[in-house]
Amino acid sequence: MVALMRAALLERAGVVETSIIEVPPLDADQVLIEVSAVGVCGSDVHYFEHGRVGPFVVEAPIILGHELSGTIVDVGAAVDRRRIGERVAVEPQRPCRVCTQCKAGRYNLCPDMEFFATPPINGAFCEFVAIQSDFAHAVPDTVSDEAAALIEPLSVAIWACQRAQVGVGSRVLVAGAGPIGVIVAQTARAFGASEVIVTDVDAQRRAFALEHGATVVLDPAHDDVSTLGVDAFVDASGVPSAVIAGIEAVRPAGIAMLVGLGHEMMALPVSAIQSREIWVSGVFRYANTWPTGIELVASGRVNLDALVSGRFGLDEVDRALSVGREPGQMKVVVHPWKGWNAART
Amino acid sequence: MVALMRAALLERAGVVETSIIEVPPLDADQVLIEVSAVGVCGSDVHYFEHGRVGPFVVEAPIILGHELSGTIVDVGAAVDRRRIGERVAVEPQRPCRVCTQCKAGRYNLCPDMEFFATPPINGAFCEFVAIQSDFAHAVPDTVSDEAAALIEPLSVAIWACQRAQVGVGSRVLVAGAGPIGVIVAQTARAFGASEVIVTDVDAQRRAFALEHGATVVLDPAHDDVSTLGVDAFVDASGVPSAVIAGIEAVRPAGIAMLVGLGHEMMALPVSAIQSREIWVSGVFRYANTWPTGIELVASGRVNLDALVSGRFGLDEVDRALSVGREPGQMKVVVHPWKGWNAART
Amino acid sequence: MVALMRAALLERAGVVETSIIEVPPLDADQVLIEVSAVGVCGSDVHYFEHGRVGPFVVEAPIILGHELSGTIVDVGAAVDRRRIGERVAVEPQRPCRVCTQCKAGRYNLCPDMEFFATPPINGAFCEFVAIQSDFAHAVPDTVSDEAAALIEPLSVAIWACQRAQVGVGSRVLVAGAGPIGVIVAQTARAFGASEVIVTDVDAQRRAFALEHGATVVLDPAHDDVSTLGVDAFVDASGVPSAVIAGIEAVRPAGIAMLVGLGHEMMALPVSAIQSREIWVSGVFRYANTWPTGIELVASGRVNLDALVSGRFGLDEVDRALSVGREPGQMKVVVHPWKGWNAART
Amino acid sequence: MVALMRAALLERAGVVETSIIEVPPLDADQVLIEVSAVGVCGSDVHYFEHGRVGPFVVEAPIILGHELSGTIVDVGAAVDRRRIGERVAVEPQRPCRVCTQCKAGRYNLCPDMEFFATPPINGAFCEFVAIQSDFAHAVPDTVSDEAAALIEPLSVAIWACQRAQVGVGSRVLVAGAGPIGVIVAQTARAFGASEVIVTDVDAQRRAFALEHGATVVLDPAHDDVSTLGVDAFVDASGVPSAVIAGIEAVRPAGIAMLVGLGHEMMALPVSAIQSREIWVSGVFRYANTWPTGIELVASGRVNLDALVSGRFGLDEVDRALSVGREPGQMKVVVHPWKGWNAART
Repeated sequence: MVALMRAALLERAGVVETSIIEVPPLDADQVLIEVSAVGVCGSDVHYFEHGRVGPFVVEAPIILGHELSGTIVDVGAAVDRRRIGERVAVEPQRPCRVCTQCKAGRYNLCPDMEFFATPPINGAFCEFVAIQSDFAHAVPDTVSDEAAALIEPLSVAIWACQRAQVGVGSRVLVAGAGPIGVIVAQTARAFGASEVIVTDVDAQRRAFALEHGATVVLDPAHDDVSTLGVDAFVDASGVPSAVIAGIEAVRPAGIAMLVGLGHEMMALPVSAIQSREIWVSGVFRYANTWPTGIELVASGRVNLDALVSGRFGLDEVDRALSVGREPGQMKVVVHPWKGWNAART
Repeated sequence: MVALMRAALLERAGVVETSIIEVPPLDADQVLIEVSAVGVCGSDVHYFEHGRVGPFVVEAPIILGHELSGTIVDVGAAVDRRRIGERVAVEPQRPCRVCTQCKAGRYNLCPDMEFFATPPINGAFCEFVAIQSDFAHAVPDTVSDEAAALIEPLSVAIWACQRAQVGVGSRVLVAGAGPIGVIVAQTARAFGASEVIVTDVDAQRRAFALEHGATVVLDPAHDDVSTLGVDAFVDASGVPSAVIAGIEAVRPAGIAMLVGLGHEMMALPVSAIQSREIWVSGVFRYANTWPTGIELVASGRVNLDALVSGRFGLDEVDRALSVGREPGQMKVVVHPWKGWNAART
Repeated sequence: MVALMRAALLERAGVVETSIIEVPPLDADQVLIEVSAVGVCGSDVHYFEHGRVGPFVVEAPIILGHELSGTIVDVGAAVDRRRIGERVAVEPQRPCRVCTQCKAGRYNLCPDMEFFATPPINGAFCEFVAIQSDFAHAVPDTVSDEAAALIEPLSVAIWACQRAQVGVGSRVLVAGAGPIGVIVAQTARAFGASEVIVTDVDAQRRAFALEHGATVVLDPAHDDVSTLGVDAFVDASGVPSAVIAGIEAVRPAGIAMLVGLGHEMMALPVSAIQSREIWVSGVFRYANTWPTGIELVASGRVNLDALVSGRFGLDEVDRALSVGREPGQMKVVVHPWKGWNAART
Repeated sequence: MVALMRAALLERAGVVETSIIEVPPLDADQVLIEVSAVGVCGSDVHYFEHGRVGPFVVEAPIILGHELSGTIVDVGAAVDRRRIGERVAVEPQRPCRVCTQCKAGRYNLCPDMEFFATPPINGAFCEFVAIQSDFAHAVPDTVSDEAAALIEPLSVAIWACQRAQVGVGSRVLVAGAGPIGVIVAQTARAFGASEVIVTDVDAQRRAFALEHGATVVLDPAHDDVSTLGVDAFVDASGVPSAVIAGIEAVRPAGIAMLVGLGHEMMALPVSAIQSREIWVSGVFRYANTWPTGIELVASGRVNLDALVSGRFGLDEVDRALSVGREPGQMKVVVHPWKGWNAART
């Protein structure tokens, strides 16, 4: 007998359909998770709109969604059965654990990584997913399902702040007040930053940022940031002019961390990078961030619930993937079981 | 009575004239150095040809030259007189010692730095210079005057290798087989690198590099380096295509260090930087490198004497500043006292 | 004409007398500070009781006190006169700025350091002191005189937390709930620590710590800490059994930072240090900590005012140096101008 | 049908007997290695003499030996069959790969580590062993079987030098001129150290060290090392007086790395550690060191063959475990197949 589940499949660009497919099988070291909540990420939207993200092309129907929480409902042969019933935030990646990068503690750079919702690996807009046991992180009851799901983008922010060496007294510039920018701002504050300056052209987003982490907000259309002399700059905009201004805003020996995506090549202010010995890098997902993320949310230092601006069921995934561009939207969440009380497998 | 000396003054772009000027006065913490040898740097040539380097403009006659060695012939009131007679390699900079950068150990980033041969600060194409006592580094007799002078460009290479975390077993790519590229190659080997790949379009320079530090040389016109997967890339070419290929050649979590100058902005492969979490930065001079440099030369691990391809007197500084572009030239050195045996002040 | 001032001189162990002495002369790069408040440190008490601290012996009358704030009332020739009137927290040290340690950014390890209240250098139990301009750090009005003085012990705590790599989510064990232990606890929290466990045999001190930084307090007489598995241990007790238990409490690859003083040799659990690769070190004062300290106090993240348990005038310094051992005392502060409204110089 | 092999079993303290036992079964990710050479380590000798090392007690017959090389003769289901025939140096540990330490890149600190020759895990004094594929490191033909085996103690030295931040120009003090001390000396030189001072009470060992890595040798019975001011101290003696003198020999901000074992507690110069902010730690095996070790041996920068002072067959293991204490012995190696030309499984 094979267990079945509902899943929202991206058939091709622009077309999502709910299908009945098999519940994924469990390896010995995996757990089966009944999905509670799944955040919609910009990359999900990009796959939906374009059928690809960079070199990754949707060539067969795929389940999107990689920001998720849920409850463990079954375990593989090698996993302690007492984990059944645990509420978890899922770290949606499966590194090889044996390559140079994995053994050096940088498993996010594993060349054989299998990452959720990246072709041909399925994601979480469905009822059940399987994940290695150690990548299902228990969350306390004080963390909501939605916040638990959003520990994934929080992990991006934690990784960015760690790599940018944000600490007590840091002055940080963040470009972009979308979900990642706002979470970076909160995270920078939690890391001890004294000043967090967030820029965005959208007044509504600036206002939201000011309530959630930013100590100052600026409009790049009118305010020059290039003389701020910040300790760290985090780009969460992907906008070339913002990146240039942000790097110019960094003090000697400071760090510029590029999180925003979308450009193969970008003109950077090399002379400033050299004469100030600024370090420039980017983040590629994250490693070992969930414990910190859970701690930041559970202790109230980061508020993820406030970002949720829309909620959809599994049959509304196409809507969930479209609505983010509307004014006032911040973070959209899919609840696969919304409206369903049926017996589960 | 005022002591006088000969000095080669850059009057304006293209015009150098030997003049008799006053020997610089000594502050209490300084030493007076009779100059033995002065290397010609690309920035000297650039000032000579263009009358400026980036924001630094020659608005009054200036003495060029900042790679120098000499002998201490007098000391300020606060300096031990026993230093008189010491042969020294000169670190040609005077930081403020009180700013945030200085007190953090990054005095090369001091905003109030006074650096030799950078308008309006004079350099060393003259008979005597003054420098803070602790920036005159004693050299053993086994280090020649010319090698002692060239510890300045060696310091750039040391700083680049330190910042690029070159160590035992490293694989390093160096773009450009001019003096800096060749010295970086030797330095990388001294730092323990197992493989040092040097690229240059000039076959003669490639051959020279292969004899002095490189384990492999490649011609960027024919060889693709972008898949090398090196631990560190050091650009000593300033050529945009070389920088792009070099960054693409870096393994995940590796470092790209930009030493070559000349571009305000440069298009960089941002997507590769992000997806591999490569760190990109540059070097701005150096800090605390002379002891290591002297050690590397005195122990024979780096051979600077082999780079000297031309020698000129003070009256030939214009020729010294022009000859570097001729085939077969590597490093040109000025000997201010060449042909003079007169009493010295 | 020479300016005079009152000063409390430690004549010999146990004997402090108020004398009229000359106001210290100003070097060109110094400022003259009218002292507002001076915290009493354990080392002051030790000099008072024993006439020495380790190798430093009181051989001539000396002014104690090195935790101080004040107002700039005069400046040396090289200092901007606009600093006159500035309220400042004083970093009570004068490094040489030219040695290897200074130039590497570790000026606290300068072998030629002149430190306040360390024979033969005078301290601050007097009306005026002189200090290098860059070691007089401006404080905002929101920071009280007493808090500004106590940025000195806060700097010890900041330095300890930096060296112990305390950060977001850290679990920290602090031995000793005296002034340093309590300030370390607050500082660890400000650095993002999730859990700060403070141990002390004194119930009153444990209660105080629990109100000021500690998340948990334990009594080492009854509670075993050695299995806590903390990320960092900071000893602020100087008690050998506490140090041993604290090191044993550190997780693999964690850090033990010894702040408490008083022992030339101490038996440490070497086997645990080796098999867990624990890093053990100590703090020797601090470097570059005042900006962070001022920020932590001004932002309310660290509360120093709450620690002050006694206030004395200049004529009561012997009492100030004795009272600390009484029950309920935490931090004693001397106000040199208390009770004096006379014209000042 | 079950394959059988000969193995030297430590029955109890002092008693080793050669038995015929089953060849270990292969997990899917393992390779089967025909053992070529096995170095004898001090811990093997300690088990042989005392039946235990610290908390690890020999409660059942066990195969000792964990420094080994060999040839892959079979592979598990998930391993590329082309590895059969490869000559390899074996990293004799099996971490869990899922715990916090493993995922942080510190797999040597894995609490669930299975390490060769540590009860109840068997070692390599036998004909065949099984190991995870990625812990069998291919060696070039230029590396001898014995040198390949001794990459294990070389790994200890590499790990120690990395943790002690030995680099270009370092001055390093090594206590003890046994096998580890001599390999540390060579490794420090390969890392760029300018001066490597080795101490030992045995003149013959000092002479050997001077030929293999040391630039200076001293006799601790007559020479005081405590004022050397070295950048790094590596203890390879386990002698308390040497550890104390070595830590006192470290310059401010330097590192002391304790490799020598045998003491639960040890009196350390805490005052010096604090006032100079010396970092003290130890090494517990190694992580990610084999590639560097193979490179150092293959390039001739470290000579391990020179250390081999005795060779024994499998029936002579008790002799191999006893002979090390004789004068002139440095490193003893067991060749399990010595004298056997029989068909192999």
